[in-house]
Amino acid sequence: MGESLRASFSSPESAGSWMASDEPDHDVVVTTRIRFARNLDGFSFRSRLTDERSKELEAHLRERLIGLELASDQAYLSLPDLDELDRELLFERHLISLELARGSGPRGVFFSRSRHVSVMVNEEDHLRLQVFGPGQNLAGLLDQMREFDQKLAGRVRYAHHPRFGYLTSCPTNVGTGVRLSVMLHLPALVYSKEIEKVFNAAAKMKLAVRGFYGEGTSYLGDFFQVSNQVTLGRGVDKLHQDVSKVVPKLVDHEREVRRTILKENGKGLEDRIFRAFGVLSYARRINSQEALELISQVRLGVSLGILKGLELKTVNELLVMSQPAHIQALEKRDLKEEERDVARARYIRQRLGRPGAE
Amino acid sequence: MGESLRASFSSPESAGSWMASDEPDHDVVVTTRIRFARNLDGFSFRSRLTDERSKELEAHLRERLIGLELASDQAYLSLPDLDELDRELLFERHLISLELARGSGPRGVFFSRSRHVSVMVNEEDHLRLQVFGPGQNLAGLLDQMREFDQKLAGRVRYAHHPRFGYLTSCPTNVGTGVRLSVMLHLPALVYSKEIEKVFNAAAKMKLAVRGFYGEGTSYLGDFFQVSNQVTLGRGVDKLHQDVSKVVPKLVDHEREVRRTILKENGKGLEDRIFRAFGVLSYARRINSQEALELISQVRLGVSLGILKGLELKTVNELLVMSQPAHIQALEKRDLKEEERDVARARYIRQRLGRPGAE
Repeated sequence: MGESLRASFSSPESAGSWMASDEPDHDVVVTTRIRFARNLDGFSFRSRLTDERSKELEAHLRERLIGLELASDQAYLSLPDLDELDRELLFERHLISLELARGSGPRGVFFSRSRHVSVMVNEEDHLRLQVFGPGQNLAGLLDQMREFDQKLAGRVRYAHHPRFGYLTSCPTNVGTGVRLSVMLHLPALVYSKEIEKVFNAAAKMKLAVRGFYGEGTSYLGDFFQVSNQVTLGRGVDKLHQDVSKVVPKLVDHEREVRRTILKENGKGLEDRIFRAFGVLSYARRINSQEALELISQVRLGVSLGILKGLELKTVNELLVMSQPAHIQALEKRDLKEEERDVARARYIRQRLGRPGAE
Repeated sequence: MGESLRASFSSPESAGSWMASDEPDHDVVVTTRIRFARNLDGFSFRSRLTDERSKELEAHLRERLIGLELASDQAYLSLPDLDELDRELLFERHLISLELARGSGPRGVFFSRSRHVSVMVNEEDHLRLQVFGPGQNLAGLLDQMREFDQKLAGRVRYAHHPRFGYLTSCPTNVGTGVRLSVMLHLPALVYSKEIEKVFNAAAKMKLAVRGFYGEGTSYLGDFFQVSNQVTLGRGVDKLHQDVSKVVPKLVDHEREVRRTILKENGKGLEDRIFRAFGVLSYARRINSQEALELISQVRLGVSLGILKGLELKTVNELLVMSQPAHIQALEKRDLKEEERDVARARYIRQRLGRPGAE
């Protein structure tokens, strides 16, 4: 498997396309992601499931997922069969969670990249269905997800309680089991320290604000995922309404602060953006965190029209491809951290048109 | 005066030429400077001289210096007649000291740029004769200086004691009144923290190590002036020997550490150099200290052949022209600090061939 997975993930063409670059609000909105948490009747929750039963559950779900015949590019991968690099690639591509990538025991992922769908098996819940796409597309993806969920419900028996709704491993997911997330690029709110207010306001609305890689990951490069916090007691439509209402407000807020900074300290902002571009264009080694932070500045520069001649699609591609596993996929070999930093710097330089002496 | 002084100092052509770019050891040795401290018989030392007598002394010396007919481009400038920008220009060009530039009372400077000669009047001593040039040229400049000193001695009466030699305001200068300085670029010794050892070794040999602008200025951009500390009890030839002996050792030491760093952490060094180049190429505002520090890295990169297609002469020019007063001379107007930082960044960008959108 490894070879084809790596080959397909090392295509920069595909890397940039799952993020917004021509959708409305692409200056702030990056991606939308929806996930449904589901469990099966007749199997204990993951925390109480023996290894034996985990295996049986995985085999059961694997067969039914494959049987869906969702797309010609669909694949089911069993995590223990994959080497570390492949697991990290799937994680960096947001197809699986950190927990599934670095966990243990029988677990797998079913996905179709053309359909932007992935299903984690034996993560925190038996099933985590996920669909994602560029820009703000909660309504469209929700329709897709509901259809997919119903299709699967026709083949497995979901654990469902007439009063509580879908039963999940963690109480916060009980009910609809739905999480609606929109990833936003909020560099101006971070720079102006207004982001703290956003966190507080979101908490009051029972919304969560998470980092680039979702749950349990820190804020990197000014990217934030805004999502509903709990699902119990709220229908999907109410959750949809809540998140849909807050996203445009955040977009407006971010834009307003960008305008204010441009007006009050335009030279300073320009300087930060161009310095980031200069370092990315010339550095000879760069770690993934610094790369993400600098690319964030460059993304802002492109959005504001300060950096000309650079496409947002290229910036999105850099965001994806400069991640540790992707750099190794590009280089077609395992690299130590220091070698990765050198390869990353070279890759970024080349994409920005400054190949330099090598 | 202001107009022509500014015009002549804003020519980048001339700016780079007083530093080494094709002399031997130009990778480490930047400039040589020799100064003679002299006082006149019949006038008290500066600290005890009344304003009235200071004026008389200045008039006396002015007439005699002009009468030397040293060169067709010679000029005598009275400091109180100059505005702040012109005084700072003379200081940044190392023609006058910080003390003379920012001091008060009757004082002046006589200089010929073509002859690389300047004479400060009413600085710490009545006369400070100075000659400078690119590369290590102690012997050549010493001959020039002796000739110049004798010529002047034929027109004024130096304060000289048969046993102590030339009398000076500060006891460390009594005797020959001579200071021999060589400016060195020692980025590797700074980076490896070996520079502390150099300071200690120099102190033991009664040599001083000073910063870019000489006495009372801090270390900037890894440039150091190595010079004799005291002159009493040592003849000029002995001083010449002392400084001449230590300079090649420092050059070798710096080169050795450069080789070691290249071998043990070549990628790290390359990265530092290219990042400095990247920031200089793209920054939209930059203060003079950061500019000097980054230009120092770039100078090292050119010396080591890491940065190709950039001439040392251009780097030297950047060192001179990015100083605060020079930037204002280039822009032909007084600038506030923030405006200078913007103008400096634009100038550096243009000289490095990255004009960008403006």
